[in-house]
Amino acid sequence: MNYAGRDSVFVIMAYDFAEERVQKALKIGRKYLKWVQNSLFEGDLTVAKFEKLKAELRSIMDEKEDSVKFYILRDKKYVEMEYLGVVKEEDVFFL
Amino acid sequence: MNYAGRDSVFVIMAYDFAEERVQKALKIGRKYLKWVQNSLFEGDLTVAKFEKLKAELRSIMDEKEDSVKFYILRDKKYVEMEYLGVVKEEDVFFL
Repeated sequence: MNYAGRDSVFVIMAYDFAEERVQKALKIGRKYLKWVQNSLFEGDLTVAKFEKLKAELRSIMDEKEDSVKFYILRDKKYVEMEYLGVVKEEDVFFL
Repeated sequence: MNYAGRDSVFVIMAYDFAEERVQKALKIGRKYLKWVQNSLFEGDLTVAKFEKLKAELRSIMDEKEDSVKFYILRDKKYVEMEYLGVVKEEDVFFL
């Protein structure tokens, strides 16, 4: 699978940042994606916006200390979601 | 999509637990999945093991306070992964 030819993708993003940069990462995450819980986000993005998101994160992160992992799906329909306990994420999301 | 008829699935799991239960959740997560970073795990699981994982988490969690989100894929081939910064996850994983 490769998303290079796609206009948009469904992205799951999780970060592990040092405490002094967590707030900045959270702010960037919320700009592009829906906050799910803790340091987890998800949402549909155009490939252009996905590239912008990565550039913004790179600009604030310490690449020797901080970590971001993206799971990229061609379409949300390929994933099923399940919850245990409290659902913290926002129900409504405007890009 | 529904994984009910599947033998195995690829699972991404993220939890947000109160501090006093984080270590227990981590231990359960590692039993079934590969640790990726922070409170994030992934891996292939039989549907039976996935049910066991959920039961174990339910047994230790406070369902009014803690939160787990699962992303379930029929196959790992539907997801592409990308990293920024440090990659923390273990390379090798024995189930």
